[in-house]
Amino acid sequence: MNITNIDHIGIAVINLEKSIKFYEEVLGLKCCKIEEVKDQKARTAFFQIGESKIELLESTDEDGPIGKFIAKRGEGIHHIALKSRNLEESLAELKSKSVKLIDESPRKGADGMDIAFIHPKSANGVLIEMCN
Amino acid sequence: MNITNIDHIGIAVINLEKSIKFYEEVLGLKCCKIEEVKDQKARTAFFQIGESKIELLESTDEDGPIGKFIAKRGEGIHHIALKSRNLEESLAELKSKSVKLIDESPRKGADGMDIAFIHPKSANGVLIEMCN
Repeated sequence: MNITNIDHIGIAVINLEKSIKFYEEVLGLKCCKIEEVKDQKARTAFFQIGESKIELLESTDEDGPIGKFIAKRGEGIHHIALKSRNLEESLAELKSKSVKLIDESPRKGADGMDIAFIHPKSANGVLIEMCN
Repeated sequence: MNITNIDHIGIAVINLEKSIKFYEEVLGLKCCKIEEVKDQKARTAFFQIGESKIELLESTDEDGPIGKFIAKRGEGIHHIALKSRNLEESLAELKSKSVKLIDESPRKGADGMDIAFIHPKSANGVLIEMCN
């Protein structure tokens, strides 16, 4: 599967600016990028921590995935992203092992990455993003 | 605050052995440690990914924190742990910034670490463990 590291942890928040303040002023991390990801109907903010990032996600549409998540469960951890050396190969391997995928082939995510989600039903209720 | 890296992501699971199988056989990670943490009423399994770990947590007591979490929300991501260079100093700083703490001073966690939790109310619904 060739997973090299935890690329990021995605956290759904109601108010991006307010949450950025917590990560910057309380935890002392630095916001290195703010980006709108139209495909995911979200605005995102990234904080680098070692070889990983924290990605805050604010919904731009209540019918989008983050809007629905917050309506159902409130703010909190939305997904974890694992970096793979070869995303196409990883997806083929997952399919061959009968893992349920949300994305059968890579699509464009935030931060210029190719991404694909594993369905939480196949992964102990955890939404896992594979990325590269 | 001196946070160096994401130490681990804690995932609450119903059946540790079954979940270990997914992380080993599907994701190709290696379980490097299984440990019972009596204080947290849980059995844990660790998988190293780069400079971080995934920690699976199976409840050993339905009245413990993992048992309660699963009863309320089902399996899923339970907490993220941020490694601090100096845990005592970090806790003092958090207190001085009026952050609500579950643990006012460090206690012993899994993997021989000193740990303390920030209350999710102070962190966008995320249970953050500070550790060293």
